[in-house]
Amino acid sequence: MGRVYNFSAGPAMLPEEVLQQAAEDMMDYRGSGQSVMEMSHRSAEFKTIIETAEQDLRDLLDIPDNYKVLFMQGGGNQQFAAVPLNLMKNGVADYILTGQWSKKAAKEAEKYGKVNIIASSADKTFSYIPDCSDLPVSEDADYVYICENNTIYGTKYKTLPNTKGKELVSDVSSCFLSEKHDVTKYGVLWGGVQKNVGPAGCAIVIIREDLIREDVMPFTPIIMNYKITADNNSLYNTPPCYTIYICGLVFQWLKKMGGLDEMKRRNEEKAAILYDFLDNSKMFHGTVEPECRSLMNVPFVTGDKDLDAKFVKEAAANGLINLKGHRTVGGMRASIYNAMPKAGVEALVAFMKKFEEENS
Amino acid sequence: MGRVYNFSAGPAMLPEEVLQQAAEDMMDYRGSGQSVMEMSHRSAEFKTIIETAEQDLRDLLDIPDNYKVLFMQGGGNQQFAAVPLNLMKNGVADYILTGQWSKKAAKEAEKYGKVNIIASSADKTFSYIPDCSDLPVSEDADYVYICENNTIYGTKYKTLPNTKGKELVSDVSSCFLSEKHDVTKYGVLWGGVQKNVGPAGCAIVIIREDLIREDVMPFTPIIMNYKITADNNSLYNTPPCYTIYICGLVFQWLKKMGGLDEMKRRNEEKAAILYDFLDNSKMFHGTVEPECRSLMNVPFVTGDKDLDAKFVKEAAANGLINLKGHRTVGGMRASIYNAMPKAGVEALVAFMKKFEEENS
Repeated sequence: MGRVYNFSAGPAMLPEEVLQQAAEDMMDYRGSGQSVMEMSHRSAEFKTIIETAEQDLRDLLDIPDNYKVLFMQGGGNQQFAAVPLNLMKNGVADYILTGQWSKKAAKEAEKYGKVNIIASSADKTFSYIPDCSDLPVSEDADYVYICENNTIYGTKYKTLPNTKGKELVSDVSSCFLSEKHDVTKYGVLWGGVQKNVGPAGCAIVIIREDLIREDVMPFTPIIMNYKITADNNSLYNTPPCYTIYICGLVFQWLKKMGGLDEMKRRNEEKAAILYDFLDNSKMFHGTVEPECRSLMNVPFVTGDKDLDAKFVKEAAANGLINLKGHRTVGGMRASIYNAMPKAGVEALVAFMKKFEEENS
Repeated sequence: MGRVYNFSAGPAMLPEEVLQQAAEDMMDYRGSGQSVMEMSHRSAEFKTIIETAEQDLRDLLDIPDNYKVLFMQGGGNQQFAAVPLNLMKNGVADYILTGQWSKKAAKEAEKYGKVNIIASSADKTFSYIPDCSDLPVSEDADYVYICENNTIYGTKYKTLPNTKGKELVSDVSSCFLSEKHDVTKYGVLWGGVQKNVGPAGCAIVIIREDLIREDVMPFTPIIMNYKITADNNSLYNTPPCYTIYICGLVFQWLKKMGGLDEMKRRNEEKAAILYDFLDNSKMFHGTVEPECRSLMNVPFVTGDKDLDAKFVKEAAANGLINLKGHRTVGGMRASIYNAMPKAGVEALVAFMKKFEEENS
């Protein structure tokens, strides 16, 4: 078959134009005589790549000058440790649980200090976002932590929590650059890039400068130290150069597409096609409370496990791949990140209609 | 210009065949309809990629069954912390200092336990490897740590240290797969891949099973935990999939080239061309004691800083790039890893001859 529509939760689809550019640049990056993979991270060429990527990201998100952008390795699990190691002064943090990733983040943070769970939607299999307008925020909390879009459960915060003056730390991995974040509302927002931004192997941390401290926990590995990373413009250690280059190409593609407000419009349009179908289908049902629905990850079920399995299998045979849901939710999940074209969602819905007709 | 000869210490040259294959696979990896960058790390396609890569590496190095192969993120600086976090039981380790990287490793380990420096070549700017036949190995040392090939200084251990029964942990980053290591002599050998194996963003850890412990230090970040990585076949977290794919292509290329004994023969042949010239030149001199010379990294100087700078500049203009030496040694350094063809070393020596004639 040709190119498939890949509904994977991540790593996930990348824009075709980006892949074509990467293939073109492979043997000789713009007259340098090298692949980006072969380039010294200290070279003028790579310096331009990483600085351009940072500037494009700053442009896309309107990142204020008093925020640093860090390109780090290790993805989400690395940040689960890096956040408490770098930000805990009092040794206390508040976590809101809305799924596996915030649970894992909280569990990792417990290695480093006291973790208070101030809200959770575990009671209903994380199918909603709790009301966060008046939470029992701890007086000595160094930060309040959320996972803003829940890849597995398909929920998203529509309003950020009232942190009562504490710093907000947000894992935005699965909604990163799907729309504009108001960076000034966060102390730290960070995302693993392998969902909406690039290939696996990098996390981007956007952090307000005054939160970058010298006196991190004494056993903080140097590779997780925000200050050392910031002071060295993400080049203390050899960064994942090629991954950063691809992210940079994606940033340029996003600018060319019209920026993040336009991406939001497109993402809303795509998601509406799928949610509207789900709301009217007799066979397929969304699993999330409507007001908490993610634009990026859409879980749905038929209520019949065998039918779910049949659907996933037949969809794959029709070039609609990775639709199997997470084992904790079951059924199906369609991840429809920035790079998923509207035609992909339309093809999915057309297939669902046909499947429903054939199997009712 | 066309493709250059890139003498970078890392990231560094990759085999042209590998890059060509990567470009070919970019839009559609072997009929899967996706780029490897877009593939779910849980997909059957990626499972085959990582399992094939591991098996090819096992074949190349004759890795015994009681050793695990871990694909991790974060490179050298990550392992500098991961090694003590995972291996210190008594909280004591012996380090041998032969350059910046073993110094950094020792300094990072000091965060986690007592570090004894049992030998060092710092007295002569790390231009040799100390005699390690009878060192004062600590009775309670959990391991003895070395950096086997010193990228900056151009030295290599020709004989492994006598560790007096303690486990040997070796950073093989800059000689990884340049020849066959006898894996059974190590407790752990690990290498950042961005020198001789692939693009930046991955370290490969080869560890004897009985050294993988559950009771690691309590503040070990999960992403650095060898046991969790091993138990999940390097898929606990999303691995750097594309980097692993490129490493896998390099392993296949190495097999096709005839394996590591043949690579050693080629590397010796290439290095001899350069060292023979240095030994006979009136202008250029190697900086390393001859019996400690690395096959991979060859530092040399003219003794005149201005002349060094002129050489580096003119060489670059002739397609011989990244020859500037590390600031602590000065002069020049030619890194001639597996992917540097013999013709590249010949071109360098021809240029050096011409430069010497023109500038004497």
